[in-house]
Amino acid sequence: MKKSLVAGVLFFNGLAMLAQSNDEQVIKDIYKSGLTNAQCYGWLEHLSNKIGSRLSGSDNAEKAVQYTKAQLETLGLDKVYLQEVMVPKWVRGEKEIAYILDNKTKITVPIAALGGSVATSKNGLTAEVIEVQGIEDLKKWGDKIKGKIVFYNRPMDPTFIETFKSYGGCVDQRYAGAKEAAKLGAVGTIVRSMNLRLDDFPHTGAQSYGDLSPAEYIPTAAISTNGAELLSQKLKANPALKFYFKQSCVQMPDALSYNVIGEIKGSEHPENIMVVGGHLDSWDLADGSHDDGAGVVQSMETVRIFKQIGYKPKNTIRVVLFMNEENGGRGGKKYAELAQTNHENHIFALESDSGGFSPRGFSIEADDANFQKVLSWKNLFEPYMIHSFVKGGAGADINPLSSGTIVKAGLKPDSQRYFDYHHALNDTFDAINKRELELGAATMTSLLYLMDQNGIIK
Amino acid sequence: MKKSLVAGVLFFNGLAMLAQSNDEQVIKDIYKSGLTNAQCYGWLEHLSNKIGSRLSGSDNAEKAVQYTKAQLETLGLDKVYLQEVMVPKWVRGEKEIAYILDNKTKITVPIAALGGSVATSKNGLTAEVIEVQGIEDLKKWGDKIKGKIVFYNRPMDPTFIETFKSYGGCVDQRYAGAKEAAKLGAVGTIVRSMNLRLDDFPHTGAQSYGDLSPAEYIPTAAISTNGAELLSQKLKANPALKFYFKQSCVQMPDALSYNVIGEIKGSEHPENIMVVGGHLDSWDLADGSHDDGAGVVQSMETVRIFKQIGYKPKNTIRVVLFMNEENGGRGGKKYAELAQTNHENHIFALESDSGGFSPRGFSIEADDANFQKVLSWKNLFEPYMIHSFVKGGAGADINPLSSGTIVKAGLKPDSQRYFDYHHALNDTFDAINKRELELGAATMTSLLYLMDQNGIIK
Repeated sequence: MKKSLVAGVLFFNGLAMLAQSNDEQVIKDIYKSGLTNAQCYGWLEHLSNKIGSRLSGSDNAEKAVQYTKAQLETLGLDKVYLQEVMVPKWVRGEKEIAYILDNKTKITVPIAALGGSVATSKNGLTAEVIEVQGIEDLKKWGDKIKGKIVFYNRPMDPTFIETFKSYGGCVDQRYAGAKEAAKLGAVGTIVRSMNLRLDDFPHTGAQSYGDLSPAEYIPTAAISTNGAELLSQKLKANPALKFYFKQSCVQMPDALSYNVIGEIKGSEHPENIMVVGGHLDSWDLADGSHDDGAGVVQSMETVRIFKQIGYKPKNTIRVVLFMNEENGGRGGKKYAELAQTNHENHIFALESDSGGFSPRGFSIEADDANFQKVLSWKNLFEPYMIHSFVKGGAGADINPLSSGTIVKAGLKPDSQRYFDYHHALNDTFDAINKRELELGAATMTSLLYLMDQNGIIK
Repeated sequence: MKKSLVAGVLFFNGLAMLAQSNDEQVIKDIYKSGLTNAQCYGWLEHLSNKIGSRLSGSDNAEKAVQYTKAQLETLGLDKVYLQEVMVPKWVRGEKEIAYILDNKTKITVPIAALGGSVATSKNGLTAEVIEVQGIEDLKKWGDKIKGKIVFYNRPMDPTFIETFKSYGGCVDQRYAGAKEAAKLGAVGTIVRSMNLRLDDFPHTGAQSYGDLSPAEYIPTAAISTNGAELLSQKLKANPALKFYFKQSCVQMPDALSYNVIGEIKGSEHPENIMVVGGHLDSWDLADGSHDDGAGVVQSMETVRIFKQIGYKPKNTIRVVLFMNEENGGRGGKKYAELAQTNHENHIFALESDSGGFSPRGFSIEADDANFQKVLSWKNLFEPYMIHSFVKGGAGADINPLSSGTIVKAGLKPDSQRYFDYHHALNDTFDAINKRELELGAATMTSLLYLMDQNGIIK
């Protein structure tokens, strides 16, 4: 090698090492700020305990919009504003009632109407029950389904390490179970809660009647895992038993709501936008502290940390608190639609919507070159116990977003406890650990920082 | 390369790949068994809810000995037996009482006597308070300590990612604080709980008067973190305030207790012993579900899994449920002493004593060659989200064990929540997640399997 070349290589290596050591220092500052001065836990306490559940179109959802906007306004950002979006408004009504009617005994079981379900008649619905292990299994029953309540009871598979995989293998029963059963003449459906443990909490969630006409809609509800076990056991002993349930939920006209947005303008490339967000709405049974209060306050925390450590991003960083992820995804769609209309150039989007547990890594949507680039930062995350960088879906709210080359990432916290709480009445503030929440926010901030420094490969 | 050499290399690579793929399959079977047929959660429920706290020398500790022995006897092991060990017996007595006496107001604060502490006089102890940030800080006060209650208030450092590091940087105040303050003439000490969050639970733990004579012993207690914050704030306003506390704990004569041991005899090298264990005793304020009921039942679970999948270890696997880790470590010492007396050859020891949370990896004590060998298995653990293999202390119970070359490992679960519960009255069964506990046991079983297959480098 020629001397000048050697010198050049050494110079380049030296620069790379310098950059790496500067990155190390900034990331250290980020975690320090995140673990000693965070506001995210306090914000979440307010969202969860002072406001509470935040289903789209509810008064609480509106309060959450106003609260988070006001809090973003305290952070010294360049711009804080609301983005209008029309959202579905579904209201649960009175607490549901359900019994197993086994000969002369009447056993109460805990159910919760699935989001978007219609009500039963005023006096409730009684019918015999057919237990099925999923939609494929349902179809085998053909005509026998007519006039019956279909009971979907396929449990989540416990052998997956990532519980989201277990969820993915089960959730079709909840989302499309009523539609498919209605096609075969069922009068209602009861779905085993998407929960890996046995307990007494029914877990609600979105369902869709698809292309059925409203006259064909049948009421559908989740039953707790213990309730499902009991019903299954009683059915084995007496296949002719009946099930009764009553719910009074109703779909109202769409309502005006908002995505909440806060921005730090990029110092070098203000036209390049990096989004970080979670969703403001939550199911109505609880505070939604994990789903997705955590993601909301962690996203807010990222810009608080940048402000505190005095980091001025080269690209524009936009915190987006999406409305209506749970039962429509309208906030994410509206944001993407306006981004396209306004010819905005999004280079990176980061979402936190998997709970406020100890962060383990990121799920990344990127082409190979950009994925390899992210992988090259793994060693910078190692001191913070962030090890898992895998290709995979990044998040429902940023899913509609596309603008040429874009990298998307979803924070991956430890998933073991998530479905203990997901969409159930125990998804409350006491299930949140302050440090775990803070570590997630610092981890997100660190990835935003590295993306901002290094850009993406177009 | 010559053809024969090429063929040889290919053959060797083929064998290595075959071994790796067989290992993959066995580890898959281990996790499947651990996630679908585990008994550890049920055992822990019994230990925690049916027996309860298990301080050395207590009736409950004896019940735990008998229960775990009986359960091990159901697993089809080759041998289950007890190993006698004399243990210290310390009894808390009546619930402690403490007040801040600030002019005419009396504010109750939650305290708990530290393990091994003496009682106050029957009517309690009242004195002025000097707040210090640790033992170094204490020494600066010299003569002024005389007649005072020393209040150790250095908090755990939140900036460490591993909370055990924060603990390590603080626990000297608890362990040696009373001894050091007594030397300067203090009449008592109050120690901020080793807890990263602010709450109302005092966290007990071992303390030692060292080489002081019994006449010099002073009473010492932990105060909750909220209590510590309040006391510190009141002291700032009124340095002349007084503190009152009363405790009636007493050190009884040593009692006879046991380590509980279960063995699968090695099929090829029965003389080589691999230990897997946790400690049966727990502090008296709670069930000790995380510390260390979890480690006990996970250790038992490893042999249940081997039995279920039909794996016959080459080396002897010995489950050891140690007595008295918390306030004396007598079980670990006795076990090591007898191992030496009997000229036993221990090649591997694995401990679980860091809580029943999601497993992240192992802390390993080994020479470089053996550490590198363990690192070569990292890819086998990756599908199970086990990423962290670091050199470090493996565990207090296996620490005294040494026999030529030995590899030791400690399971490293996620540490963020551990000190929320450690030695406090909220270390109860409801803080345990079934899957996290099971994943820890399967992770331990997998390392035992790989060690058994590959042996250690002598």
